Amino acid sequence: MRASDPVVAFQGELGAFSEMAARAYFHEAVTVAPQPDFPALFAAVETGACTHGMIPIENTLMGSIHENYDLLLSHQLQIVGEVKLRIIHTLIVNPGVRLEDIRFIYSQSPALAQCTDFIRSLKGIQTVITYDTAGAVKILKQNQARDAAAIASAQAAADYELEILQSGIENNHQNYTRFLVVSQEGIAPSAPAKTSIVFALKNVPGALFKSLSVFALRDINLLKIESRPLRGHTWEYAFYLDFEGALGDQPCARAIEHLREIATFVKILGSYRQGETVEGKVRHKRP
Amino acid sequence: MRASDPVVAFQGELGAFSEMAARAYFHEAVTVAPQPDFPALFAAVETGACTHGMIPIENTLMGSIHENYDLLLSHQLQIVGEVKLRIIHTLIVNPGVRLEDIRFIYSQSPALAQCTDFIRSLKGIQTVITYDTAGAVKILKQNQARDAAAIASAQAAADYELEILQSGIENNHQNYTRFLVVSQEGIAPSAPAKTSIVFALKNVPGALFKSLSVFALRDINLLKIESRPLRGHTWEYAFYLDFEGALGDQPCARAIEHLREIATFVKILGSYRQGETVEGKVRHKRP
Repeated sequence: MRASDPVVAFQGELGAFSEMAARAYFHEAVTVAPQPDFPALFAAVETGACTHGMIPIENTLMGSIHENYDLLLSHQLQIVGEVKLRIIHTLIVNPGVRLEDIRFIYSQSPALAQCTDFIRSLKGIQTVITYDTAGAVKILKQNQARDAAAIASAQAAADYELEILQSGIENNHQNYTRFLVVSQEGIAPSAPAKTSIVFALKNVPGALFKSLSVFALRDINLLKIESRPLRGHTWEYAFYLDFEGALGDQPCARAIEHLREIATFVKILGSYRQGETVEGKVRHKRP
Repeated sequence: MRASDPVVAFQGELGAFSEMAARAYFHEAVTVAPQPDFPALFAAVETGACTHGMIPIENTLMGSIHENYDLLLSHQLQIVGEVKLRIIHTLIVNPGVRLEDIRFIYSQSPALAQCTDFIRSLKGIQTVITYDTAGAVKILKQNQARDAAAIASAQAAADYELEILQSGIENNHQNYTRFLVVSQEGIAPSAPAKTSIVFALKNVPGALFKSLSVFALRDINLLKIESRPLRGHTWEYAFYLDFEGALGDQPCARAIEHLREIATFVKILGSYRQGETVEGKVRHKRP
């Protein structure tokens, strides 16, 4: 490990999907720093305790992770990268526990929601919400529970040396989470690049259409739009927009200038290289 | 109560904010039917067991309630009305319990998230997630807990005859939830009307801009846009759109025809009268 290697903050315990995303994005030369929640993750990067943060922003089954959209708006970090991780849920138990012994299943709320078909098929199961998927495995191990299982990554099972009873128990295998890499300083990305911004509009007819026209007029492709209530302004919205290209490109820079004429505010969240889809690797021996 | 009076399904226990919304929208001539979850609510209306359903769709602090967006897409119910309820959270305890006795606070996850500033100010409190706000009050009463409080409506405190220690404990008083009224049959609403639709687009540059232009060309004002991942189509999106006007109006009907030329599918969720903002009334004696 060199002094220049990234130190990456993520939410959850070791073995969390966010840790797998960090290792997939930065490859092996990375130190990971578990954080109890997302505000702590943003704080760790803002104070310089960590060089980067890895934040889940969107899941193909569940939609956007709004808390992180709000934190991107209220903090000054820049998005510098993106990675899309295939999420494979496994059912994890203490050694020797059988499927028919299970009365309780622990996991984080989105993971439970992604596995409802499997959970229903077991009959009479009670679900218990935990703060993290890997955290559920940790609790299971500490309790030495013989009537409970956890839903988490295969990495979490390996880390806590527990058994996987079943793998791929998510309702739909098209289950991917998009993660963003945040840092104090923005970058000039290589192609194919994308840029994320957030803006608000005057409450006038056609305002949203006009705001999108600044991109259409310049043949800039929109990738995603999301409206979120603007705090303290009832029924007014902030729009989170992803578009193709980097702010260093003339058409994109001009589109933003044009947008500022229409919007009440525009905040640049960052330009970054469009992320690849990866399968997380399970490491059976940690250093 | 007459045979023609509405029977309204809502999620949660009596005293839930959804029940207050139902009573505010239908006034007193209403029978309410508590449901354990949102799929059960939709089923109750589809089978005809209830004439209407009252579903929360969006909160000014938390954003959209995605599960209900997804259920609107996968079911055949029509939106026939809308109401916006001011959400005032109260801290509820068993009689005689003091603020300094509290170690645990029970409530539904969004309610806890709306009161984080207050909860933090108490120091060393553990939060416990329940399936419903009024359900948290029910549990508190059943346990006769002396070291716990619940966060819920004043109505829930009245229903279970417990004490309110503090009222208006939400982080931000601009806290409103928008509810939709669903039914088997659509209506022709009076003005001011709005229409909700969901559609998906071919993955071609400028598709979103073109789809919004069908409204802009006809001076139809857009009220809200929300993108949601389309199940089974990784990184493709369904767009939920609210616009001013009813489908019975010529410009709106033509805009939808035009949209069908561009979209891979368009589903009409309903035209309805734009809802008013109400404060829920607390009923101290139930019939």
